[in-house]
Amino acid sequence: MTPVERAQMAMMLEVCAFPKPGNVDRCHDYDDTRLEHFLASTILARPALEMAAEKAAGPGEIIHRAVALTNTHRGGNTHFGAFLLLVPLIMGDGIEGARRLVATTTVEDAVEFYRAFQETSVRVNPGDELDINDPGAIDELKKRELTLYDVMLHSAPRDMVAREWVNGFHLTRKAADLLKQFGCGQEAVVETFLFLLATEPDTFIVKKHGEAVAVRTMEHALEVRSGLRDIYDLDEELIGKGINPGSIADIIIASIYIALGEGWEWDC
Amino acid sequence: MTPVERAQMAMMLEVCAFPKPGNVDRCHDYDDTRLEHFLASTILARPALEMAAEKAAGPGEIIHRAVALTNTHRGGNTHFGAFLLLVPLIMGDGIEGARRLVATTTVEDAVEFYRAFQETSVRVNPGDELDINDPGAIDELKKRELTLYDVMLHSAPRDMVAREWVNGFHLTRKAADLLKQFGCGQEAVVETFLFLLATEPDTFIVKKHGEAVAVRTMEHALEVRSGLRDIYDLDEELIGKGINPGSIADIIIASIYIALGEGWEWDC
Repeated sequence: MTPVERAQMAMMLEVCAFPKPGNVDRCHDYDDTRLEHFLASTILARPALEMAAEKAAGPGEIIHRAVALTNTHRGGNTHFGAFLLLVPLIMGDGIEGARRLVATTTVEDAVEFYRAFQETSVRVNPGDELDINDPGAIDELKKRELTLYDVMLHSAPRDMVAREWVNGFHLTRKAADLLKQFGCGQEAVVETFLFLLATEPDTFIVKKHGEAVAVRTMEHALEVRSGLRDIYDLDEELIGKGINPGSIADIIIASIYIALGEGWEWDC
Repeated sequence: MTPVERAQMAMMLEVCAFPKPGNVDRCHDYDDTRLEHFLASTILARPALEMAAEKAAGPGEIIHRAVALTNTHRGGNTHFGAFLLLVPLIMGDGIEGARRLVATTTVEDAVEFYRAFQETSVRVNPGDELDINDPGAIDELKKRELTLYDVMLHSAPRDMVAREWVNGFHLTRKAADLLKQFGCGQEAVVETFLFLLATEPDTFIVKKHGEAVAVRTMEHALEVRSGLRDIYDLDEELIGKGINPGSIADIIIASIYIALGEGWEWDC
């Protein structure tokens, strides 16, 4: 498998894994985002993933391109966070190289990232001085000479995907190790997802529903892991309330990408 | 969407459509072939589909390549019949061109096709004088100067996919029109699948279970279409008995490919 195919396989395997409490999976859609939207993005993102493999542009421009290619259906933004991780991981040929790469990003990368953001409906913290929805934000980036790394550093306290950029892809590494420890195939993906859900507050849930809901979701996931609660029951509850751990899903995609490159078997 | 992306989208949309009585879909696997296998093939077939778009080789060699690329997982052969339709449809830029293309295939195309066949476990009629599993079959092809078109002509009475090659892609055309008549999205795919299931004996079922089972399956599908039977009930029965209408699925993939090129909307 080429790195591009590994990235596409990671996107496909993540969304198909079932049951993943609260998220779109092979047996659950949300009204506005369905399984086919995630899989269409998996297919349509390929030219941007090829750009990353060929290092044909800076990471900001490639992320922008990936978002533009996959923003063509009614499912909205499906993989923004995943691209934010996959692009440096592909360009850096793994976690070590990605660490070096993110440290060398430029103001132009930040500008491209903001442009990508502005083309989607990704939820951001209102009132932030670098508010993505503020048309003046790009001028502000340039004035303050902020690189894409600086932007991620700024977002890291409130966004676990941005945090990966500044902590050396810590959770991506941990989840890739968990995948291998849990064995092979889709069951390992579900176990790893549930492990992260029980141990990390999902920042996408925090942004949408607040800190308390994110913490309660961790407790529920821990109950499932402890055999106190049925996973299908939690899945129904979260789906019903629109509580979807989207950022953990992004990290799972990155971790499947890494694990596949290290010999983890998806097919068993 | 490029023709290659249309082909990948067609493969993805077909396997995800639910419920498709008897076949792998987003909520049903078989023990040995699961949803991920079909979607992995969708991703991994791309270089062969690119070859078709670029007309980089003959159709036999490209079909062989597609089968080889997707025969790398434990799910076995997932799309042999689909490639037999998609490759000429891509190379010919539609049905008209595909009709012309299949008529000009060579003995070398036939040889490549047999090589592809021999690398899979696709079921063939035993005792046939061009038995694919007979190591001497390729010599026999050469001696009798049979082209890939001749091979399809030979198989047409017993194989509805081969029949498409010799009848001008009749069912592909019909199913593409049905998709448009039934509206947009996955519901149209399910309706079209059910329509074909009720009106055409699936030759894959015939090969595996005999003519009587194929005819009974048509009757059951007609009962569903007439409101006399629940589609989920039929799905469970067919899955339970291993009765999977695999050839109709191949034709549905080809028809989605054509319909997407004619403006049919998958996303509604």
